[in-house]
This record gives sequence, C-alpha cells and structure tokens, in this order.
Amino acid sequence: MADQKKLVQEITSMDEDFTQWYTDVCIKAELIAYSQIKGFMVIKPYGYAIWENIQKLLDERFKATGVQNVYMPMLIPESLMQKEGELVNGFAPEVAWVTAGGTEPLTERLCVRPTSETVFSDFYSQDVHSYRDLPRLYNQWCSVVRWEKETRPFLRSREFLWQEGHTIHATKEEAEERTQQMLNVYADFLAEDMAIPVIKGQKTEKEKFAGAEATYTVEALMHDGRALQSGTSHFFGQKFAKAYNIQFQDRDNQPKFVWQTSWGMTTRVIGAMIMVHGDNRGLVIPPKIAPIQVCIVPVQQRKEGVLEKARELAGMLSNFRVKVDDTDKSPGFKFAEQEMRGIPVRIEIGPRDIQNGKCVIVRRDTSEKIETPIEGIADAVAKTLEAMQKEMYEKAKAHMDELTYTATTPEEFKNTFDKGNGFVKAMWCGDRACEDKIKEMYGVTSRCIPFEQENLSGTCVCCGKPAKKMVYWAKAY
Amino acid sequence: MADQKKLVQEITSMDEDFTQWYTDVCIKAELIAYSQIKGFMVIKPYGYAIWENIQKLLDERFKATGVQNVYMPMLIPESLMQKEGELVNGFAPEVAWVTAGGTEPLTERLCVRPTSETVFSDFYSQDVHSYRDLPRLYNQWCSVVRWEKETRPFLRSREFLWQEGHTIHATKEEAEERTQQMLNVYADFLAEDMAIPVIKGQKTEKEKFAGAEATYTVEALMHDGRALQSGTSHFFGQKFAKAYNIQFQDRDNQPKFVWQTSWGMTTRVIGAMIMVHGDNRGLVIPPKIAPIQVCIVPVQQRKEGVLEKARELAGMLSNFRVKVDDTDKSPGFKFAEQEMRGIPVRIEIGPRDIQNGKCVIVRRDTSEKIETPIEGIADAVAKTLEAMQKEMYEKAKAHMDELTYTATTPEEFKNTFDKGNGFVKAMWCGDRACEDKIKEMYGVTSRCIPFEQENLSGTCVCCGKPAKKMVYWAKAY
Repeated sequence: MADQKKLVQEITSMDEDFTQWYTDVCIKAELIAYSQIKGFMVIKPYGYAIWENIQKLLDERFKATGVQNVYMPMLIPESLMQKEGELVNGFAPEVAWVTAGGTEPLTERLCVRPTSETVFSDFYSQDVHSYRDLPRLYNQWCSVVRWEKETRPFLRSREFLWQEGHTIHATKEEAEERTQQMLNVYADFLAEDMAIPVIKGQKTEKEKFAGAEATYTVEALMHDGRALQSGTSHFFGQKFAKAYNIQFQDRDNQPKFVWQTSWGMTTRVIGAMIMVHGDNRGLVIPPKIAPIQVCIVPVQQRKEGVLEKARELAGMLSNFRVKVDDTDKSPGFKFAEQEMRGIPVRIEIGPRDIQNGKCVIVRRDTSEKIETPIEGIADAVAKTLEAMQKEMYEKAKAHMDELTYTATTPEEFKNTFDKGNGFVKAMWCGDRACEDKIKEMYGVTSRCIPFEQENLSGTCVCCGKPAKKMVYWAKAY
Repeated sequence: MADQKKLVQEITSMDEDFTQWYTDVCIKAELIAYSQIKGFMVIKPYGYAIWENIQKLLDERFKATGVQNVYMPMLIPESLMQKEGELVNGFAPEVAWVTAGGTEPLTERLCVRPTSETVFSDFYSQDVHSYRDLPRLYNQWCSVVRWEKETRPFLRSREFLWQEGHTIHATKEEAEERTQQMLNVYADFLAEDMAIPVIKGQKTEKEKFAGAEATYTVEALMHDGRALQSGTSHFFGQKFAKAYNIQFQDRDNQPKFVWQTSWGMTTRVIGAMIMVHGDNRGLVIPPKIAPIQVCIVPVQQRKEGVLEKARELAGMLSNFRVKVDDTDKSPGFKFAEQEMRGIPVRIEIGPRDIQNGKCVIVRRDTSEKIETPIEGIADAVAKTLEAMQKEMYEKAKAHMDELTYTATTPEEFKNTFDKGNGFVKAMWCGDRACEDKIKEMYGVTSRCIPFEQENLSGTCVCCGKPAKKMVYWAKAY
C-alpha cells in the first residue's frame, strides 16, 4: 500500500488547490504533455483515446440528424476573413498569420482558421443554387488556433481539437430549429454519455459569439462551483449570407439569401469531465467514454493459475473494453494507477478467489467492493457499469443543484459568492450596464438566460428596475 | 436516356485526355471543390466519406499491431525544425511560416507542420527514460501543409490529410522489423480493401525521404501506365535520436539512443483509387471503401407499391450501406449519377419486377445485370459485392502485369516508353549518375528496388557495367 499512497500523494488535494489538482491529474493520468510552444499541448494516447470515444458518440448523434462530414482548408485569406466585419473584429486579436510559403513571402497573408464560418460561407456561395440544394448540414472535425494569452490544458489552449457544424437553410424557422436541435444533441450527449448535467439557455448580447444573431449554450458546473461553457450553437440569420452572397432560387423562382447556423464542441469537454467527476485519487471516467472500462488486476500473479484465470476472465468480458494488468508492479501500485486513470471497474482476482469461484469488482466512483461469482461475471460487470453511468450523472446533478442559489437583492447576491462558488439565479432588467456592473463588482459573468425561466421577483437584482429575464450567473473557466 | 448521356458527356474520355478525365471525375462525382487558395481543396461529403472509410479500415489495422493514436501540435518552432539538418533542408522550400500571433509579431517563426518527426522526437526525448518505456508506437491523423508549386486534387495539394506513424525502439532489429511491418500493412490494406495491387520495395538513395536511412514504398500503377507512390515507411536509424537526444537506460543500465521509424499514407490514395478503377462513366469504388454500397432505383416509382417495395428492399439490406434514390429525377439520370459516383451495386425495381418477385442487380464495374429473386436478396448482394471486390483487384493486377515490361538495353528501355507508359524492370549498377541520366533521357524515375528481385541480365541498362539490383522505373504522379 506504500506504492499506492505514493502515487496518490503526487497529486495535490482538490480541496487545497483545485487548479493545481487539475493540472496534476492531466499530467499524472497521462492525458497530456506540454510542448515547446506555450498553449500547444501534446495529447497522449490515453487522452486521445478519450477524445476518440467522444468523437465517435457525438458523430453518431450528428449523423442521426442528417449531418455530413467534410473538410475545409485550414488557411483563410485575410480578404475572405474581412468580408463579415463582426467576426473578424472578434477574432482579429487572436489569430495566427501565415506570411510566407516556402522561401517566398505571400502576396496576401493567410490566417490559420480560428473558426470556419468564412470558408463555409465562401464554399456555399458557389455550391448552392436552388432550394433543391438545401438544407446543407455540414460538419468538420479539425484543429483550430486562437492565440490566447492565458492557457490551461483542455480548457484554454492556443490549438485545440473540435468539431464545427455549419448549416444553411431556406427558411428562418428551419435554421432556428436546427440551432436548437444541435444544442439538444450537445445536452443529451453530455448528460447520457459524459454523465454531465447542464443548463440550457441563451447567451446575452454581451456574451454571444461574434457575428451571431443569437448564441445558445450548455453550461456545466465544475466540482469547485465554477461554470464551464461546454458547447454552443449559433443562429446567424442572414448576416453571412449577405456578406458572402449565399443565394438560392426558391420555389417561387425568386433569389433569396439562406439562413445559417453553426455549432461547436471541443476538447474542452475533457476538462469538464475531469472537473465534474474527478476526486483526490485522480480521474473518474464515465463508462461510456472510458478507453478502458475494466481493469483486471491479478493478485499474487506468480502463483500457478492466477494469470491464466485473469486472462480467462478478460475473455469472458470481451464485450467490454478490458485490460489485464500483468505488469510486474505491485497490486497496490496497479490499484493506484487504475484509480488515477479513472478506469470505471477494477476486478481483483487471487488464488483464494479462484478457489471459491469468485472475484471482487471494485467501482471507481464509490470504491464499493462487490464479491461476484466468476460465472455470470459479464452480467455483473454490465450492471455495474450501467449503474455507475447513471449514478455518476445523479451525483453530478445533486452537486449542481446543491451549488445553485437564488438571489433577489444585491446583498444576497454578494453573500452567496462570498460563501463560495456556484450558479446564482437572479432576475435581470436586460441592460448591459447592469451586466457590466455585476461582473465588475462580483467577478462573475452571465452564463445564460435559461430556457426554463422562473419568476424569482419582479425586479433586477442589480438596479431594482423591472426585470425581464432570469439569468444564471457564475465565475467561469 | 438523354439525361444519362448528358451527365456522361460532361466528363472527358479517359482515352482522349486522362488528366482532364481525372479532374472531371473529381468534380462531377462531387469529391472535391476548389477553394480560394491554390492547392487547398474542399473535400465534399462524398469524398470525405471515402476518407472516413479509409481511416477506419487503416486505423483498425494499425491498432491490431499495437499502435496508439495521439495528437501533436500543428506548429513547430524553427529552431526545433533545424536540429536535424537533412530534414529541414528537404522541407525548407515548401513550408508555410507563421510569423504573427494576434496583433503581435512572434519572436521566433513557427512552421505549419509538413511532417512531424521533429515534434515527436522532441516529445520522446522528454517522455522516455527506460527500456520499460519502449517501444512507443504512436500515430496521428491530421492535416499537413507543403507549399507545392504544381497542384492537383488528392495527388499533390498544399494541404492534405494523412496519418503519420512515429515509433521508437530499443534495438535496430526491432525498428527495422516495424518499418517492414507497416509497409506490409499498407500493401495489405491497398490490396484487400482498396483492390489496388502494389510493388513493394526500397527507394534509391536519390529518392528516399529527407533524413531517412532507408525508405520503403508501395508503388501502384494507374490506368494510364503512370506510377503513384501510395505509402512510405522510413527507417531513421539513430539520426533523430542523436539530433534530439532521445536516450533511454537499457537493461544493462547503459544510456542508449533509440532506433526510429515513421510511415505515412495520405488522401493521395483516393487519387489512386480513381485512377486505378475509374472508367468513362466515372468512379468505380471497391465495395469495402464505398460510402454507399447499394443504390436502389425504383422504376416507375409513382405506381402504387413501387416506392414501398424499394424501401422494403432497403430494409432487407440493412447490413450494407444502402440508399434508395427516391428523388424526382428520371431513372436514366439516377443510373448515370450512381455510375458517376461509382456505387458498386445498383438494384432496379419496377412494377413488373415486383409482380414477379424479382429485381435486377447491376454491377458497376462490369455492367453485368443479374435478375435476382427478392427473397434472399441479401445473400445475392453479399456475393456480388464480394465477387466485385475480388475481381476489381484481379483486373487491376492483370492491367499492371500487362503494362510491366523488362528492358536489358538502352534501346529496349527507350522503345518501351516510346510505345506507352508502364513499369519497366531493368538492371542498375547502383550509381546515382545512371539514375540521373535515365531520368534526363527518358523522363522516368526509379520507383523502387523491389523486394522480389529478378536477374534480367548481368549489366546496368544505362552504362553496361555490372548490375547490382533490379529496379522498377516509370513516369510517376
């Protein structure tokens, strides 16, 4: 057990220093390594396997709604970027510029895509002619670059992996519906696959995406009570259609501009997973996302028949992502390693277990030990993983509910954040001035105007004037 | 049939102008579109779906050999690039340079990765300490940029998608074995999944990869008799290990440098697929790679029961990638479209077929029509796809064999290429001078020194001195 303690002691306690705990877990669970360039990280095999599972599950959900994958150029001419003013102003401070190709300077500089609305719009303007060509429901999986000042693994990096969906439609209604549909895809994916509950809502004018008419968001609450924007879906109206001239001939033979959306989710959700489910022993990965779902640890593995039995067990569990840890490390070290990596289920099996035709299932999230007959182990593991997936969501939901407060006066608002972080629901008059003032005074931002509105009081929590909407506020990553 | 002819007439005949035929197919089969920047293409849904299938099948083959996927930064500091001289010299003329991040110029310029040996080496130098950490078998799927002068869709573009595997090993033997193993993975993938036969061999010193000690290649022959390098595997020895200081402590407690390999396959293989299998009606896609394997075309679809039966048929074929074309286009147009897109099997079904409990299966490659009972259609389709996959390979192999010539004298060599393109096998003394001279005189390059050597004559085809090796020569893409 000395080994086990040692590995655990290598990570900072989350209660002492949550930020350091987060970084420690990223490194010790072997998700990432730093590279030579600030804000550019290496995603190691275990981290990338998590991303592959996220991609697979999310991509299936996209395709079920008719979305098709494509690939667009990663470099964008400056003149193309500039056709739509708001977007370029929003991104100008944070794009990387290519100014030379080979030994010769370029006549026009090219930016490494920070997002691809401009490229998709340019493509659509040439490829779409008739209402028969609509809708176009395209998505791409790629990496993007944004020159952030402060960087943290997964949460804010200068290069990150994501998917960006870009759709165009013949009518406003259809585009608005798609914007909502994809937000729901994100919310369902987070809840059902990542075991992360979210608040769905609309961003305020201040917080919305550069160039969008409306931005919708799914907001999750981390273990430390800070919020993380975990996916966004934008309605662009006809703004890009007009800037890039994306027209089609409608059924009535009239030329019309298309209606447009975009929506994205990034490697950031790995950060959310770490901070929602992790504990002082490391990662806790929801079974559906886990690269390895079951780790079999043979105890006294040099004794005759133990390793063989462990491998036999693995064979019985071939429907799961299963691994036998037959390295020459001590069982204690293997336990600690499995826990650090957040593998949902550990199975311990030693000579006495084998004699009794049993083994021990240990759940990563609760540490519950379940003595289980080897016969029928596959069913037992299936049930354990299913229960864990469900209960991880419930636990996260209970935590979020517990850290969700309401405030009807400035004092209540202040007191809540003085006590600790969390979501605060409060009424808002709709004025930018109040939103700015709240940020300045309490260091929190409006996370969203939730779809599920409540009427907490008739007046704005900041200015006392008549309230228009209830808003979720929080400190955010 | 007028519609059908129209679509077909839109592509140039491959016998008249193979280059134009290729471009026409890329556009008309909706694989790609051009973007605003020369050499950067949009990969459209149908083209990308082919790439997704390639990725899936190749990735499974990689993982079966123990390879793990990772993601490395896309930007590389110039100083990091320069640590190994040969590689940087090889790539310097064709990299894109990032010189500003946001509004500020960078203190050191960064190149957009043209290949990632340098980044992997830098990572390994920090991450590997002991023989226990070896081997490392990492791969990444990403896009790379090389500022090519001449560009063509898939074959040579300034940005392309690929995978790049980078492995390090404790011994030379193990690294050499891995180099061969991955070349065999490529050859098997091309033969079994893409139905493309290849010649396996080693590149000459002149043609090998910058920085490699040995480069191995799989060379395919296109329909027009020109060769296409379709995948390469490199043995680096300890060159990068020494330049980037990748050391490990071996079993004998001594610090040692690792042995390294890299291997890559790109979207270029889509170009190979087009040029090996395509015909004057468009693409012909091997069943294992085809995004849609079966297209059901209802004939007289407005007649009662026809569309329903077509959909019922699709239900019976749910084990395949199947589509019902229920658009309001004419059957002739649908046939032409299916043929342009290279969908392996078309099923025609009309009122009379339904009455007789039958339908007609049409093979894309041979145009063979097979009247088939609806009962048991799934078996019939499975057999047809299987036969097609096999026979497409055999046809391509026969074509390659037919266009493979031998030459023992300069006259024979010249005569062969005067008659037309193909592989010419000829003996070589091993001198760079002869290789250069052959290129200069006949416009062909050495494709590889094949593993399967033959002794055609004792003397070099160029200089008449004693020969060392038999070489495949060809005009290449």
